[in-house]
Amino acid sequence: MTDSPAHPGVDLRALSDRRTARLTGWMADAGLDHLVLTGPDHIRYATGHRAQLVSEGVDWYAAIVGADGEAEVFVPFTDTDVPEPGPALPRLRRLRPAPSWAPAACQPGQWARSLATALSTRHARRVGYDALDAGILHDVAADLPGTRFRPCAADLFALRAVKDPLEIALVEAACRINAAALDLAVDSADIGTRDHDLLAVAAAHQHRLGAEFLTHSVCNVRKGSGGWFADGAPLKEGEPFFLDIGCHGPGGYASDAARTGFVGEPPAGIARAWQQLLTAYQEGQDAARPGVRCSVIHETINACLARHKLPVTPYGTGHGVGLRCCELPSINAAGRMDSDAVLRPGHVIALEPETAVDHHGTLFVLKIEDNFAVTETGLRRLTHHTRA
Amino acid sequence: MTDSPAHPGVDLRALSDRRTARLTGWMADAGLDHLVLTGPDHIRYATGHRAQLVSEGVDWYAAIVGADGEAEVFVPFTDTDVPEPGPALPRLRRLRPAPSWAPAACQPGQWARSLATALSTRHARRVGYDALDAGILHDVAADLPGTRFRPCAADLFALRAVKDPLEIALVEAACRINAAALDLAVDSADIGTRDHDLLAVAAAHQHRLGAEFLTHSVCNVRKGSGGWFADGAPLKEGEPFFLDIGCHGPGGYASDAARTGFVGEPPAGIARAWQQLLTAYQEGQDAARPGVRCSVIHETINACLARHKLPVTPYGTGHGVGLRCCELPSINAAGRMDSDAVLRPGHVIALEPETAVDHHGTLFVLKIEDNFAVTETGLRRLTHHTRA
Repeated sequence: MTDSPAHPGVDLRALSDRRTARLTGWMADAGLDHLVLTGPDHIRYATGHRAQLVSEGVDWYAAIVGADGEAEVFVPFTDTDVPEPGPALPRLRRLRPAPSWAPAACQPGQWARSLATALSTRHARRVGYDALDAGILHDVAADLPGTRFRPCAADLFALRAVKDPLEIALVEAACRINAAALDLAVDSADIGTRDHDLLAVAAAHQHRLGAEFLTHSVCNVRKGSGGWFADGAPLKEGEPFFLDIGCHGPGGYASDAARTGFVGEPPAGIARAWQQLLTAYQEGQDAARPGVRCSVIHETINACLARHKLPVTPYGTGHGVGLRCCELPSINAAGRMDSDAVLRPGHVIALEPETAVDHHGTLFVLKIEDNFAVTETGLRRLTHHTRA
Repeated sequence: MTDSPAHPGVDLRALSDRRTARLTGWMADAGLDHLVLTGPDHIRYATGHRAQLVSEGVDWYAAIVGADGEAEVFVPFTDTDVPEPGPALPRLRRLRPAPSWAPAACQPGQWARSLATALSTRHARRVGYDALDAGILHDVAADLPGTRFRPCAADLFALRAVKDPLEIALVEAACRINAAALDLAVDSADIGTRDHDLLAVAAAHQHRLGAEFLTHSVCNVRKGSGGWFADGAPLKEGEPFFLDIGCHGPGGYASDAARTGFVGEPPAGIARAWQQLLTAYQEGQDAARPGVRCSVIHETINACLARHKLPVTPYGTGHGVGLRCCELPSINAAGRMDSDAVLRPGHVIALEPETAVDHHGTLFVLKIEDNFAVTETGLRRLTHHTRA
């Protein structure tokens, strides 16, 4: 996998070693001897195993990770134990059968028995979990009265928020796929092109360029804010539209980006609002430096929009990007976040301001989104586009 | 939305009434005065609101549903309360702001406060939840000592397993999209075509034909069992490959289907194994009648494969299909399921047998999958293909 054109030069074995060192170091600090992980991103981080098979399969797999970083993973696709399943994944020691093709909560007895048995065999005493179903957790804990369980999803996302340079290289590889697909889709727009057609071009190119998984396919044509979904609407002369798409690239790291396109020349009012959105976007990027609180970036963008008498972005203007498309740090109003994180070098973020403009009674939403690595001096863009 | 070519004649208002009658009837029987729902499929079922924005956004939204079926939904895309947000969704009375673009467990304080306040205002006493994060649940429950919470995901999936005829019509509409995309992708295969190219054709057509959301894009070219993922492998003369793709159609109902294709004429041993898989598949379909236990279907398929000295399907050979791609009933070995359900009219299922055959030292996996409605007399196929 190391010589794929999509992630040239990334030594996945070295990345695995670094991730494991960070994870097991954190486990030691937190006093945890085991983790039970069900999130495909956490499983990938800890074991390298790819558990993102279908969008809804968020709890079809479970990894049990020991204090030494060695792991076993319950998977839906085998009926026997598989020892040493991946020579490229040295810490993944065993695959074990799990129920197939249903949310874990549909088979709580199966899951509770399997997890309790595995944890008991390992003499687990202090176990962190990311997203284990509450009912299953209750049953596992009842089976293991001497074992303590505690939620650790927020800690794991915080741990993963600051990326290793190899991780940033993989996000950048995903960004190359995603940005190219986005540009091709925007360039394909013409009068009469439907939102579905734009998404078709984008998805096809994400696959052709080697994406692992397509995360979302949003297209807004004459919908208001919150109008994320294509419904067959055809493009009209002079109108703006936006696309917001994402994918995981090889290695499982994601990209999340958006572009506003125009069919022909937009009316002056729309063109002016678009330039003002770009100004707000640039001010947000300029504000995004190490040491700045995330809410400051958010307020900078929205203050600029308000100054131009445009609607502010009615949601968080940014988020982390990594093995999940949307992870920590959140970039939002301070009142909408548990913690207003300080931006640090190694954070990888998406910024995604939105505004809207009325034209002859129709509200057009304008949006842009790129991904950036935070460096010692500011932002380095990871999504390179051929258009503004 | 009712006159979309993808779901002709489906009266979504009538469907909403029927779903609400079923849901509130079940709540009354279960003694629940409220539900807290985070699964996009459960939210759609209860409110009509579309909460599937991105693959990982499984807990970005939360619906609170009262005993009368009226609901409010916390959403990531607004900074103010939105009363009566959808004239087409009469039971959805209000949208409320939630944290944006991160797993709920990253903002447990925000979520716990919002949910506890809403439940307290409604004087909720007995609350069912589908998949609320265990840590957030703990904090909400601590805030509301007089309120009892209980997990109800398995009950909700069981409730939804038997479909209304309008739901079956929507699954069939999704199947039209998915089967057509699959056929076009298989037909595009030629020597040198890469797995990524096949998936590109499939995804583009799913979008062009009006899919709401793409759930998975699996392609196996010369991988063993469990080799779900494209990696750029080119097709070779005489070789089989398989595609397994899914999508949600308009209305949010899913289709999940798979096809094995051949580049040119397969060698005799592979062709024979393929015919034997089709025989096993047909025997499974013939066994799938109301009153039969799901494990019997599974064992029928695998017994036929074993009789032909082929590897059995190493996972569940089927599952329900509805607002999730994979839901109840599970069709698997009795020992891999909490409950070995009896097949009933109105169930909608996928059957997906797999086998494998060695050819000159390479293991080729053969797979097929269609969706079926269970009628009084047996199965009615919902995925219509132009090829066998």
